[in-house]
Amino acid sequence: MKVVVLVSGGMDSVTALYQAHRDHEVIAGLSFDYGSKHNHREIPFAASHCKTLGVRHEVISLGFMNDLFKSDLLRSGGEIPEGHYEASNMKKTVVPFRNGIMLSIAAGYAESIEAEGLVIAAHSGDHAIYADCREEFMAPMAEAIAQGTDVDLQVLRPFIEMRKEDIAAAADELGLDLADTWSCYKGGEIHCGKCGTCVERKEAFLLAKLIDGTVYEG
Amino acid sequence: MKVVVLVSGGMDSVTALYQAHRDHEVIAGLSFDYGSKHNHREIPFAASHCKTLGVRHEVISLGFMNDLFKSDLLRSGGEIPEGHYEASNMKKTVVPFRNGIMLSIAAGYAESIEAEGLVIAAHSGDHAIYADCREEFMAPMAEAIAQGTDVDLQVLRPFIEMRKEDIAAAADELGLDLADTWSCYKGGEIHCGKCGTCVERKEAFLLAKLIDGTVYEG
Repeated sequence: MKVVVLVSGGMDSVTALYQAHRDHEVIAGLSFDYGSKHNHREIPFAASHCKTLGVRHEVISLGFMNDLFKSDLLRSGGEIPEGHYEASNMKKTVVPFRNGIMLSIAAGYAESIEAEGLVIAAHSGDHAIYADCREEFMAPMAEAIAQGTDVDLQVLRPFIEMRKEDIAAAADELGLDLADTWSCYKGGEIHCGKCGTCVERKEAFLLAKLIDGTVYEG
Repeated sequence: MKVVVLVSGGMDSVTALYQAHRDHEVIAGLSFDYGSKHNHREIPFAASHCKTLGVRHEVISLGFMNDLFKSDLLRSGGEIPEGHYEASNMKKTVVPFRNGIMLSIAAGYAESIEAEGLVIAAHSGDHAIYADCREEFMAPMAEAIAQGTDVDLQVLRPFIEMRKEDIAAAADELGLDLADTWSCYKGGEIHCGKCGTCVERKEAFLLAKLIDGTVYEG
């Protein structure tokens, strides 16, 4: 199947890219610069992995989200909270309907370049705080995309029932070095090790019993 | 209900804006500049009507669609075909998943400004060629938006069962002069009168037995 992969440059979506490259014909990788504090750190990893695989890579700028949307993940928002990802203070890092927006744009782009499927790396660990990562959202969104395109475009969500440590293990099997991905929401020089997504990243390596090659602060 | 209205500046969405202003609390009107040949003609009408009603108006630029998407409606596409809207040659003016993209972005924005509903003016006459105007698309899209936001955002589609002439009649009842709206896909100085959307516009006034104040070429 000809697919477009949503690839942020984080460990989940980069793994999805390599897995899709094994299982499908990846005709493009798509990244979004929506004004988060860490987009400038993660997108170069997306670009680099697409280049390695010989996959066309496009970056779509959604600067209006930083201007008009309310979220601490955005440059216009408050400070990134520290602590576990599933904690209530991480709620402030939700970017309203982000996956809906990215999937919709990817759907229009995919139809334009004659793809048959879209791949998104949402996983079960995201479900607690992200409404737009849950299957209750994904199933009707996939139906809307199939109905709203002339090509009956499919939304593939290979990790929807997996935990982040399962993704880390899958990456290891694919021979992918996850040190070459970015998670930290703070977007500093190196991973802070303290924000929700850094805590979750560390935990994934630990639970998957894999060496974490990431350099963290402190 | 606090609502955001998708308002392009065409006769349908401007009528939806006035009707929503009568029936709800409109907290914003939202226009999209996605690189069509006529965006620069229609958006000023959207701005002007929002100003008249004292409604905040935002224009979101989606320039990447002109660069990456395939459609003769876009500046990057071929010539706008002439003839009836439902004819097969009008298919080339479809912008892939446009309504999905606009609704998704509007959903994220609406959640950010604490709206409870979104209004979109899709009507039954659009159904023939636009997959993303049909209720088969709208129903799952509305479900995805309700599930994918924390506020259970509602998608209102007041015209989904109406024909364009019914909308013209509704505008007349609202005291709205539809000459102050823009349809023509060619985006010239005045309406061409020959492209699909001009033909459909003329037909709507005729069938609604209303005077058409639009100035057409020739």
